[in-house]
Formats: sequence, structure tokens, C-alpha cells
Amino acid sequence: MGLVVQKYGGSSVADAEGIKRVAKRIVEAKKNGHQVVVVVSAMGDTTDELIDLAEQVSPMPAGREFDMLLTAGERISMALLAMAIKNLGHEAQSFTGSQAGVITDSVHNKARIIDVTPGRIRTALDEGNIAIVAGFQGVSQDKKDITTLGRGGSDTTAVALAAALDAEVCEIYTDVDGVFTADPRVVKKAKKIDWISFEDMLELAASGSKVLLHRCVEYARRYNIPIHVRSSFSGLQGTWVSNEPKQGDKKVEQAIISGVAHDTSEAKITVVGVPDKPGEAAAIFRTIADAQVNIDMVVQNVSAAATGLTDISFTLPKTEGRKAIDALERNRSGIGFDSLRYDDQIGKISLVGAGMKTNPGVTASFFEALSDAGVNIELISTSEIRISVVTRADDVPEAVRAVHTAFGLDSDSDEAVVYGGTGR
Amino acid sequence: MGLVVQKYGGSSVADAEGIKRVAKRIVEAKKNGHQVVVVVSAMGDTTDELIDLAEQVSPMPAGREFDMLLTAGERISMALLAMAIKNLGHEAQSFTGSQAGVITDSVHNKARIIDVTPGRIRTALDEGNIAIVAGFQGVSQDKKDITTLGRGGSDTTAVALAAALDAEVCEIYTDVDGVFTADPRVVKKAKKIDWISFEDMLELAASGSKVLLHRCVEYARRYNIPIHVRSSFSGLQGTWVSNEPKQGDKKVEQAIISGVAHDTSEAKITVVGVPDKPGEAAAIFRTIADAQVNIDMVVQNVSAAATGLTDISFTLPKTEGRKAIDALERNRSGIGFDSLRYDDQIGKISLVGAGMKTNPGVTASFFEALSDAGVNIELISTSEIRISVVTRADDVPEAVRAVHTAFGLDSDSDEAVVYGGTGR
Repeated sequence: MGLVVQKYGGSSVADAEGIKRVAKRIVEAKKNGHQVVVVVSAMGDTTDELIDLAEQVSPMPAGREFDMLLTAGERISMALLAMAIKNLGHEAQSFTGSQAGVITDSVHNKARIIDVTPGRIRTALDEGNIAIVAGFQGVSQDKKDITTLGRGGSDTTAVALAAALDAEVCEIYTDVDGVFTADPRVVKKAKKIDWISFEDMLELAASGSKVLLHRCVEYARRYNIPIHVRSSFSGLQGTWVSNEPKQGDKKVEQAIISGVAHDTSEAKITVVGVPDKPGEAAAIFRTIADAQVNIDMVVQNVSAAATGLTDISFTLPKTEGRKAIDALERNRSGIGFDSLRYDDQIGKISLVGAGMKTNPGVTASFFEALSDAGVNIELISTSEIRISVVTRADDVPEAVRAVHTAFGLDSDSDEAVVYGGTGR
Repeated sequence: MGLVVQKYGGSSVADAEGIKRVAKRIVEAKKNGHQVVVVVSAMGDTTDELIDLAEQVSPMPAGREFDMLLTAGERISMALLAMAIKNLGHEAQSFTGSQAGVITDSVHNKARIIDVTPGRIRTALDEGNIAIVAGFQGVSQDKKDITTLGRGGSDTTAVALAAALDAEVCEIYTDVDGVFTADPRVVKKAKKIDWISFEDMLELAASGSKVLLHRCVEYARRYNIPIHVRSSFSGLQGTWVSNEPKQGDKKVEQAIISGVAHDTSEAKITVVGVPDKPGEAAAIFRTIADAQVNIDMVVQNVSAAATGLTDISFTLPKTEGRKAIDALERNRSGIGFDSLRYDDQIGKISLVGAGMKTNPGVTASFFEALSDAGVNIELISTSEIRISVVTRADDVPEAVRAVHTAFGLDSDSDEAVVYGGTGR
């Protein structure tokens, strides 16, 4: 029996009862002979309440102080969880990100982990303790300031600790049963995936699946740490994310298609009337990059020969729309374009699966399914193991269901599954 | 202009408005040319809410985890305060007790400061920042665990930092105007004291005055740090506590009597029928000490010659009553006594003033005032600069007023003053 890292999100420890329930589950793992490291998020709405307080005292809270504030949330949940475990007769010690050796860069509010030195965690484990670690936080290497890892940061903390401690598995406990072939709120017949490769999971995460965030999966792939996503409310097996199915687990094999993801959080900007000459696209995307805006899909129309002008469209998070428009307008003369069109009523549907590399009919079937459902396609983008299209936002639910059915992903039962986020 | 340490209690930063008000006051001090270090307590009821959560998950929260939990409170208030200051256009950085170099022993929940190494605070000040420090907390020297300093700990943090940084003054901001000649809730004519010596303040604190705690004054005396107790709600001068009045301040001189303190938080235990022979008192108080109970006054009755038995009475905090009674009962055969009497309806009235050393009539006037007020005295104890008596709890308000008037302490005006605690 080796070392297990377990991560519990805010919804799992939302109140005293939740904390006691989680404590029992942790003690079970310990009783089964594992060394147990637990990463915990802030309780329920704590983070939102702290953000609200910050906004009351300052319209633009400074990064360093904002991080100091937010990390109070995990401090509370981890101490309570350690108390609850000790109350069950087992030894537990809680550690802040800094105490756990989570070393980051100095980019407040979205720091990146650059090293993990879990000496104190190792000592605590060797002394028979269960180690409870605050998720989402670290300490900066240069200034020794408290940092936070941004959205989904607790999952990344868990995977990083699992890597540093050479854990058998990183268990991500959440309020759903695992990763599904589609969002069960949209597709009632979505099935839980038993096993999925890192690569497919990365594409799903990049395409709107919210169960695991991209950077967490990326980290796990780099260090080859198997992730087990499962419900903190049941004892069921969830979804394993790893390089290969567990040895001897014959039932589990790579599906041709892993799932259908969708995302309605993006908007589309079209730059109209761009001179069709070298360097134009570069000027546009340099402007966007300088404004610190991340873009997703890019499409350039075929140039109208008569005018020598073309249109360039790209998608980006709605939250960044204002910033991108402002940056382009400021640089209008430098770039040279007629006008900008902004459209936030779009949705993206993505089909993900390593099997499409060797199954040439996948793309055709995908477009046929959309066509049969009467869904119009506005943009297309593909990778080796993913096809994404942009449609009207209103068409997304129907499009997802149509594609899910067309690829034989529907489960036989159609019981509804409650689905939510994993907190941070 | 030198360095000033300011401490704000929980009632001063109870909500966003309070934090913004305090931020303005801090910025004023900075604008006046001071280097400013601010020690802040947790907001309003935060600590009580955290304690409540802890009790929900565990009937006996462990010390280490309990400290980790409670320190989340100051983390929130200090980060918000730093944001509010930055929002006023001034630079501020917040520091945990650990980051500020507050090194303590390992006694969780009531750790003692053993060293202060404020290197990061000094650097922050030298870079032009206002430094905000979490009160009430430190880090243990041996295990590097988070500790808390117990009741009144934030005041102690402030004085300890003032000493380590060689501050001009430690300003303790609270919700009253300063230290009064008596509790203004009891004595409407109580006067604010302009200056009081460390010695007299120590006796007042030991006798029930709650504005400053004993250990904080003790620390300030040891390092000769002047304390200025004042209201965070007004710009008025408060009470200076120091070795000597400020130079040139001719108006302020040592009063014969500093004030009248009272305390109704104690109970009295009488051990009845103790053999009047050497070693008996020692056996009783060794039993009490082994139970970790602190006692206050002790009186042994004159022995009744006929029986060879005597009674021994002592006072102690009501909260420790059960523990003391249990310890004595367990050791009844070892000590040898007839019975125990427990009385929690007592009160203590103390007259404090260095002047009583050179004014022999003080004791007589004290007893006359009580006698004139019809107050019966049950126990008496004295130090060089204090006389204390125990009476019925019901008699305390009348007794305090009578003594206050008899020693000419009444102010001419009788406006009511709102009076409260200083938080922790």
C-alpha cells in the first residue's frame, strides 16, 4: 500500500457536516494501509465572500494582498478537517501551501508552481500523521510572498504534491461521479467514462469540460501521475485519467471517441476589411497578445479578389472581449481594417478521441450529425484528436445531443445525474 | 519623526466601513512623516465564528490546528486593511506573525513571545511601505508551527514589535477614549487618565481593568515602550502609559491615586476545618497548582484554639472553579479537611496609586468610605501601591462609586462614556 493524495473541493467541505463526512472517508484510506495526503479547498462560498469583502474596501485589490486574503479560506477548512480527523482518533496535521513546500513564481492570483519541497509533509507522514494541505496556494520563490494558483488551483496542488511525493494516485473528489461523455445537464444519456488517456482529457478540458482543468491534467501527464476523479458522496469508482488502463483491467480500453464537450463562454470577434497582404494577421494577433488576451480559434476568409480585402475571425473568452476590442481600436491605423464585429451569442462543440486518428470517417459523421440536426456551422478547427465547430449558442444543446447519439455514446439508462463544478 | 506602531482591535475593523476609516487614520500618521507599523486584530466576531465552527467538528479541538484556524481571522483583516490603504494611494504590505518575525514558544493557544526578528518589516518600511501585521499570532521556534498568543495577544504583538523596531510609541486604538479612574459604566463621573505609570497600570490591569492586559503592560515596561491608549473613533489624546510623563508636559503629574478597579469574575473557595499545623496550606496550594489553576487572594482565619482547626479561603477565576474543587476533593484524604465552600457571588474592589506609599491615611480613608456606604468586607489584600477588598458582588457598584468620590476622583461633568473591551 503506497501513498495516496486526495483532493476535496469546496462543495465537499461546505459545512461542519461535510467536513466530518470527508474526515471519515480519509480515515478509511488510512485504515486501508495508505499514507494519506489531503489537499482541501476553501469551504463552500468562503472565497466568494472574501472577494466580496475585498471589493467593498477597494475597487482594484492589489495582487499580493488579494492572495493573502483568499488563502485564509483554505486555512480555515484545513484546520477544521485536521480537527475532525483527530476527533476520529487518528493523527492529522494541517499545512499551508508554504509549509508544504509549494514554491511558485511571483505572479499573484495565477501563480505557477515551479518546485515542490514537501519535507515537512514527508516527516508528518513518517510520524504516522495524515497530512492536510491547503490547496490553491503557495509561496513565491524570490520574495517569500503568499501566492494563489488561480482557478482550479487546488487540483494542481494535489497533482503537484502527488508528483513530488511519488504517490500511487491522485484522487480528485468532487460532486459528480467522474468525467462524462458529455455534460449530463445537457445530455441525459451521457455515460461516465471509466478510463481516459491524458491526451483526450487535455482536449476535453480545453474544449469546455469543467471537471478537471487543463493545467492540472497537463501537470499529471508530465509526471505520469494517475488521476482518479470520483464523487465524495458515494463509494463508486469514478474516472481514471492516465497513460494506460490499469494492468489487468481488461474491460477498460481506449474508446474511439472519448466524449463531446461544449463551451458557451466564448465570443467571436471579426476584423472586417483587412488588406490581404503578409504581416496583417501578425499585426492583429500581436496587438491582442500585448493586451494579455488569450485567443482560441482563428479563421481567415478567402480573400475577395476584387477588393484585395479579407476578414479575420477569432474566438476568445467573453470576459476578455472588452479588452481585445479596445486594444484593436487603439491600434486601428497601425493594423488597417474597416470595422470590428463582436458576437457573444456563439457556442463551441468539440468531439474528442484518439481514435479519430485511425478512423477517417469521424469528421464526415460529425458534420452529418450536425447537418441532420439542422445546425449551421460558422467556424471549424481541428487537432489530431479533436474537431471543434462554432455554432449559434442556442443550437448548442441540440447539437451536443445529436453528436453524442451519432457516435453511439448514449447510455442505455437515462437517469439524470447532478453535475456541478469542482470549486477551485 | 520616528517610527510609530498602531494597534487596532476587532471592533475598530468590524466591517468594510471600519476598515476604510482606520485606513484613513493610518495614512494620516504616514503623511505626518512617521514610519507606520500597524497591528490588527480579526474583524468583529470572526474569531467567535471560527471557534463555533471548531466546536461543531470536534468537542476538543487540538491546539496546533485550533491556532491554525484562528489565525485565519487576522489574515483577512490585515489583507483588507492593506488593500484599503493602497486604495488611498499609499503603499502597504501585510505580514503574518510568522513573516513579521514573531517567534514564540510552542504552547498553543497561549504562546509567549521569545524573540522578534522584524527584518521583513524593516525592509518594507525602508521601501516606503506602511507595514500591516497580523496581531495575536506567531510561529514556534522549534517546530515552525503557527501559534496564537491568547487573550489580548494583539496588544502584546504591538508592544513587542514596537520594542524590536525601537518605536517612539505604541498606540493602542480601541473603542474607549483611554484608561479611566474607574469603569465608566459603573462610575459616571470617572475621568480619563492623561498619564499613568507602568506600575500603577500593571496593578489596575491585575485588579480588573480591561483596557490593557497585564502581560502587554509588563512587556512595555520591560522594554520601556510608551503606550498611548486612545479611541479609533476620535482624534482626542488618550492615556499615556510610560515611566515618566513626556518632557515639558507640566500639566501631567503623578496622582496620589490612579484609579479604582473592580472585578466580578472571581469566586471564593473556603477550605473548612483544616488542621492548624505546618504544611497544611502548602498541601492545599500544591494541589491547586498541580491542577494548573491560578489563584489571586489568600486568607487564613485565626485558628480556633479549642479545636486546633482553621479555615483557608482563596479567590480564583470563576472559570477555574470546577477544576479547583475537583482537584481538592480528589486529594481530600491527603490534605485533611472537613468541607469545601464555593461562593461565586463575590466582587473585588481595588484602589491603586503609587502615592499610597507616602500617604499613610489612604488605607484608613478607603475603609471609611466602604463603611459609610454600608459595604461589608470579607477579605483584604494589599501591595505597596494597591489595596483590594472582597465584598458581596451586589455591593460592588455602590462601593466603587463611594471610593471614587472619597478620593476626589470624580470629574466635574457627568457625561456618560461608552465603554467596551479591546478585543484580543
